[in-house]
Amino acid sequence: MTVPPLPDTMPPVSREAAGVLPSGIGELVAYGVERPGLIPLWVGEGDRPTPAFIGEAAQRALRDGATFYTRMLGIPALREALAEYVSRLYGDPVGPERFFVTVGGMHAFHTAIRIAAEPGDEVVLPTPTWSNFFGAVAMQGARPVPVPMQFDATDGWSLDIARIAAAITPRTRAIVLNTPANPTGWVATRADLEAVLTIARRHRLWIVADEIYGRFCFDPAHAELGRAPSIRDVWQPEDRDRVLFVQTFSKNWAMTGWRVGWLEGPASIGRIVDGLVLYGTSGVATFLQHAAVTAIREGESLIAEQVAQARAGRAIVCDALRAVPGVELPAPPGAFYAFPRVPAEPEDICLAKRIVDEANVGLAPGSAFGPGGEGFLRLCFARSAADLTEAMRRMVPVLTPR
Amino acid sequence: MTVPPLPDTMPPVSREAAGVLPSGIGELVAYGVERPGLIPLWVGEGDRPTPAFIGEAAQRALRDGATFYTRMLGIPALREALAEYVSRLYGDPVGPERFFVTVGGMHAFHTAIRIAAEPGDEVVLPTPTWSNFFGAVAMQGARPVPVPMQFDATDGWSLDIARIAAAITPRTRAIVLNTPANPTGWVATRADLEAVLTIARRHRLWIVADEIYGRFCFDPAHAELGRAPSIRDVWQPEDRDRVLFVQTFSKNWAMTGWRVGWLEGPASIGRIVDGLVLYGTSGVATFLQHAAVTAIREGESLIAEQVAQARAGRAIVCDALRAVPGVELPAPPGAFYAFPRVPAEPEDICLAKRIVDEANVGLAPGSAFGPGGEGFLRLCFARSAADLTEAMRRMVPVLTPR
Repeated sequence: MTVPPLPDTMPPVSREAAGVLPSGIGELVAYGVERPGLIPLWVGEGDRPTPAFIGEAAQRALRDGATFYTRMLGIPALREALAEYVSRLYGDPVGPERFFVTVGGMHAFHTAIRIAAEPGDEVVLPTPTWSNFFGAVAMQGARPVPVPMQFDATDGWSLDIARIAAAITPRTRAIVLNTPANPTGWVATRADLEAVLTIARRHRLWIVADEIYGRFCFDPAHAELGRAPSIRDVWQPEDRDRVLFVQTFSKNWAMTGWRVGWLEGPASIGRIVDGLVLYGTSGVATFLQHAAVTAIREGESLIAEQVAQARAGRAIVCDALRAVPGVELPAPPGAFYAFPRVPAEPEDICLAKRIVDEANVGLAPGSAFGPGGEGFLRLCFARSAADLTEAMRRMVPVLTPR
Repeated sequence: MTVPPLPDTMPPVSREAAGVLPSGIGELVAYGVERPGLIPLWVGEGDRPTPAFIGEAAQRALRDGATFYTRMLGIPALREALAEYVSRLYGDPVGPERFFVTVGGMHAFHTAIRIAAEPGDEVVLPTPTWSNFFGAVAMQGARPVPVPMQFDATDGWSLDIARIAAAITPRTRAIVLNTPANPTGWVATRADLEAVLTIARRHRLWIVADEIYGRFCFDPAHAELGRAPSIRDVWQPEDRDRVLFVQTFSKNWAMTGWRVGWLEGPASIGRIVDGLVLYGTSGVATFLQHAAVTAIREGESLIAEQVAQARAGRAIVCDALRAVPGVELPAPPGAFYAFPRVPAEPEDICLAKRIVDEANVGLAPGSAFGPGGEGFLRLCFARSAADLTEAMRRMVPVLTPR
């Protein structure tokens, strides 16, 4: 994208702001968003508005006058609900003092990076990964260090622990571990999680753990737990002081637009998070937090429906795309994205634009997700079977060799 | 406040995060917030919940399914409503492309500082001023440079332009200009505004203009306009590229807890703000923005009521406090705070705590507002006459020499 220069009359703009990275997904959205009838599979959200029971909880709190300044770390009722949810889901008793409410998962990640890294520090990112991670690290003046994962057309993606270890320098402050992963659908094994913890212990690093797709796990081995393996499954007591979990209400509870998430970490950083929130955003509206409490307490059947829809969507998309000659798509074990490798020509951004033009379907180009993503496309299958079937009907001909 | 050390098992915390400033107001709130019957005048908010017509607009948007990811710069309807509001109020036609929706005024200020200053840069703050300004500048790794204003027991506060000019160094990037001012109630004259603009032009500085109390102006000379003098009244066309306005729905529309505000600046920084929002918070919930549109379009009578209540509260508080021997309180020409100078002993923080203990009234200590604020107390008079009358009845004896 070409960027217009800033006018000479303007005072200098800070390097971090002037150099803020463009979003590779945003480029495609800008290209196609106005097309009538386009099926948008480019961003990570479903087609279902937030269910009424959650909205009604916000309305009740609004009517009750919960419209005054709020607590920087979140209202006690929500911090307690989060602690109970996490304790139950992971069989790992944790208290509310570890939970800090944020403006969505993005703000949780931003806050985690602010805690972990100073300008000039390095943050290791296994790639391909969510493009916003690069932008948020760079915005802090820190350096994202991509470490490509390995792709196998049959076995899918895997983490190369030796490459992670080799990427650590004296400036490294954190490793971002996203499992199940966006965009690849990769799910870390216990061995992966233990290996990353070992590196973090050895070098005194933070682990920024993004397990927001944890409920979206299609491996029958994990079905009984209702979640993917977590770093909690393998950590030692002292590791509780080195992991910052970034989380969100967006995916599980169909609340992408609410901008409510949370950071979980050692209670001793509460004072720091309090200040970072106070001077950054001054908290999350109390009435939205009451709705989040209701989402957690009454939302398990909603999550089950969302996971079932994603499972059905995954089958539709995988069946259609794996039948196209030249397309490689090992079935993703987690999250709600398909990330097919497509023929090398044209490059992925051009191909995604062609799919907008010729199929009226919106996908994200793999190169937006960093090294190792080139030549792939991402599409979100957390959507109705009808939409996904129609999207496949339209786009398969564009992908099929002529 | 003593801060517990971080455990040794924890990886290093960034200097900016570890050094995040405590809030001097927060210390008092923590001291007294649990007291039954306490009248809280320590923070800048009224006692009125958000009126129903605004909450109902949010509820309608929620029911209409406005729960998906939103635009980083704000929904077009809100940006247009903001442009119309500002154009009308200031007689200064501006377009929606200058308006960027933020998570309250705090996030607008944070974003403005991010644009203006890099780590090590300096930001000039006339003081006493809102304590969060110090925290937000320091959180960016930049240095707040306080420049005390002058206090006269009869004429009130005034800006010392020569001191501002003398504080400029090669590292200065911005001057924060808050008028009407928190906590002093000072209102800039046209001459003040022109003088600050002249300094900004000469040194190529940003002006971060906080005019959020602009509607709260008690000087009969400005009553007809319905607002205080603004930097817009004196700026030249090219100055539009050097002023960043930080604004909020909190005060005018009784929406402190909603966390909706806006940044106004040159349209050419739109790309930058888009990225800063994307990687920081990812926007403000669409349904909250629809409510903000309703607040602007239908809220003028609400603002008139709020200003009338503040005017009445100002009279109650000034009459009571000015009668106390040793208290100096020139009537504040704007905003909604009284900032009396109290006898030097005990120091202001101890006195504020004593007022909590003996009068069950919550005030903010003047030293929280930076150099020049020591020996003053701040109280918010945007509150019912009954509460303020009772608060004065209780606290005047504590202030009266024994």
